[in-house]
Amino acid sequence: MGRRKHEVFEITGESVVTEKLIMREDSIKASYLIETSYEIEAAAEIMAGEQSCGTFLRTPGESDALRANHLAAIEHIEVLESVTEPRLPGARSKDGNPIRRAKVTLTWPYANIGTNLSALISTIAGNLFELAPFSGLRLLDFEVPEIYNEKYPGPAFGVEGTRKLVDVRDRPIIGTIIKPSVGLSPAQSAAQTRKLIHAGLDFIKDDELQADAPHAPFEDRVRETMEVLNRYADAVGRKPMYAFNVTGDVDDMLHRHDFLVEQGATCVMVNLNWAGISAVRHLARHTALPIHGHRCGWGMFTREPSLGMEFTAYQKIWRLAGVDHLHTNGIRNKFCESDASVIQSIKACQADFIGQKSPMAVLSSGQWAGQTTDTFNAIGNLDLMYVAGGGIVSHPSGMQAGVKSLQQAWEAAAAGIPLPDFAATHPELREALEFFGNLVK
Amino acid sequence: MGRRKHEVFEITGESVVTEKLIMREDSIKASYLIETSYEIEAAAEIMAGEQSCGTFLRTPGESDALRANHLAAIEHIEVLESVTEPRLPGARSKDGNPIRRAKVTLTWPYANIGTNLSALISTIAGNLFELAPFSGLRLLDFEVPEIYNEKYPGPAFGVEGTRKLVDVRDRPIIGTIIKPSVGLSPAQSAAQTRKLIHAGLDFIKDDELQADAPHAPFEDRVRETMEVLNRYADAVGRKPMYAFNVTGDVDDMLHRHDFLVEQGATCVMVNLNWAGISAVRHLARHTALPIHGHRCGWGMFTREPSLGMEFTAYQKIWRLAGVDHLHTNGIRNKFCESDASVIQSIKACQADFIGQKSPMAVLSSGQWAGQTTDTFNAIGNLDLMYVAGGGIVSHPSGMQAGVKSLQQAWEAAAAGIPLPDFAATHPELREALEFFGNLVK
Repeated sequence: MGRRKHEVFEITGESVVTEKLIMREDSIKASYLIETSYEIEAAAEIMAGEQSCGTFLRTPGESDALRANHLAAIEHIEVLESVTEPRLPGARSKDGNPIRRAKVTLTWPYANIGTNLSALISTIAGNLFELAPFSGLRLLDFEVPEIYNEKYPGPAFGVEGTRKLVDVRDRPIIGTIIKPSVGLSPAQSAAQTRKLIHAGLDFIKDDELQADAPHAPFEDRVRETMEVLNRYADAVGRKPMYAFNVTGDVDDMLHRHDFLVEQGATCVMVNLNWAGISAVRHLARHTALPIHGHRCGWGMFTREPSLGMEFTAYQKIWRLAGVDHLHTNGIRNKFCESDASVIQSIKACQADFIGQKSPMAVLSSGQWAGQTTDTFNAIGNLDLMYVAGGGIVSHPSGMQAGVKSLQQAWEAAAAGIPLPDFAATHPELREALEFFGNLVK
Repeated sequence: MGRRKHEVFEITGESVVTEKLIMREDSIKASYLIETSYEIEAAAEIMAGEQSCGTFLRTPGESDALRANHLAAIEHIEVLESVTEPRLPGARSKDGNPIRRAKVTLTWPYANIGTNLSALISTIAGNLFELAPFSGLRLLDFEVPEIYNEKYPGPAFGVEGTRKLVDVRDRPIIGTIIKPSVGLSPAQSAAQTRKLIHAGLDFIKDDELQADAPHAPFEDRVRETMEVLNRYADAVGRKPMYAFNVTGDVDDMLHRHDFLVEQGATCVMVNLNWAGISAVRHLARHTALPIHGHRCGWGMFTREPSLGMEFTAYQKIWRLAGVDHLHTNGIRNKFCESDASVIQSIKACQADFIGQKSPMAVLSSGQWAGQTTDTFNAIGNLDLMYVAGGGIVSHPSGMQAGVKSLQQAWEAAAAGIPLPDFAATHPELREALEFFGNLVK
């Protein structure tokens, strides 16, 4: 398979390619799933050219020396299956050639991009997806050199920082979402929060649809809710974490953050995709609180398997931006995502990435006691936020029993005790297994 | 077809639903293409519920009054064709039901969201794409009430403001891109700019891959390039526009912008998708210059026809953010996009949107003199930026002839004269038709 070696040249006297940079040649790396009727190596070369020096006609300035210093290189090609029909429309086909899939890994000289998160993503996930030879192109994963830590040190809180703030150690952090998603007044929302924390919840979050709406202005909502949380903390000595959704314009987000700090809040939530990378990074630099990252809109990026990106790549973007909690769905969720994909996402969040703290995976959507054993067996640890809505508030014996049923289920899962056995001596879990078990049948 | 009417209730004494807001009930609107084996109306109700008050079990707080005030409503359903196979994997199917496609329009009470761009997009393009009933879901278009103008007044420059800065009136603004995309030193880049403006170009832009890389630091690049442009302007009395790519973290973008203003630059460029909505809006509030919006990564959002979004919706996001120039591709481009899609995109940019200025459509990718007639005939005006790379620098008689060939081609197109006829008396156009015409055969 083709692998272009980079020889390093000085182009001209003005070149800033120093020895330090030369050491980092080829150190930005991205892997893709592609589908094309072109020869795989030729297709990969088009990707590499388009995302580094190239254009459709070689231009006068594109000297051999410049190409040697700056052209992206093909590091690895793995040819996969052939298919009979192109998956995505619009691709240019090479008549008579089979349509094949392949995994391709490209590398870029660090000097092409530098340490710049949005420029990095513009390179590895830029104009590639529209290139004519491809009837499929999906970003699978990427790597950056450790120098990225200097500007993008990753989550400031991560798992340990979050556990410390919530004061929950040896089990998942049990959370819920204020529902209905929108429509409650600030007083109604605060009243619901009071019920939820008295039911024993560690964590509560805004729905992603709730931000700073006229029917429930952010500051009113925060003021009333934090009064509840602060009073509870004064009495009990432990403050449940509430993730307030600050999503909005940059100044509004900072302003809301500062108001949260002033009111004693311990978490900010952002809708990552639509606030965007640079704004989230800006908030992370500014914040004194962990960032709860909601991925609403993510389906658009990932649901077509031949397009977009894998969560493995996606979560690295947000780790670099400094996000502390990342939504992954839970298994047997109400969305289209498979259990295998959910487990892979959680593992991706927990895997090492240039030595940065790991963000805490947030499992949600249709979660109740019933998924704990399979989740634990797949992940092997309890460093999760486990967010349930109906699975708590619809428990037949009420919210408190709902929360207990989750705590019991996780205790059983971690101890390797089958849930029905543990339920024999734990009535809240027993009721949950009966009630929700029948619902999901 | 089902259409739920909203009656307006006061929920409690705390409700902030004032008469002013009631007047704007249902005034946020979005239309979708869906594919589902559910009954279409039931599927649309699931979308409406999920993106307003709903969860998978009705929660205690979800009163009839709250639903009446805040539930999204189905405004319109148009049932389209049936298909034999689900397009996207993972959907839950209703056994025995046909899989049908439909256009669905939903409306939201303004009070649910308020005037908040990233919260708006989180609602109309949020968790929808992963909902289990759907084997296809694509955002086609959306509408916001005019109150959005108060916070998001749209492009500050648009077509007229840009024409004024460039001093080009009765033809498209002719532009090019610094190529190779990356690898030129600041001095090399400035030297190329000198050649390009002396060749008669109105507009030059950075490649989207070029931002602030170690091999060509932004400030060095700007300083050397602006010296060229400022000298030229002093001599000629007209300053060609150069769009410098400021893409990066928020503070870096503002800093780069301020440096550009100080150096006499007249345009900033941003990679929209990966800087993100809130950061671009922040830059737009701050900027004294038009924002040149590059859409690299856009293929990910749009290439699968059953997922993501149409450009019609996409361009409205960036108009609200305040972007002045928007990339649309040109016809017969080197990407996968069809000519029909390109023309629709340009028309979308030029269509009225809550009275805001229109962004200037930027046509690029494989453009040369040959596409001018068909483009003009489809669009009917000259309010375009026409960006060519190889189509200028690879002209057999050099760049100046390349630029002239484009000017001549647009003059012929606007006058309704066939290009070969006009070429008889215009040698640069004649050479372009011969050289590039043979290349693209």
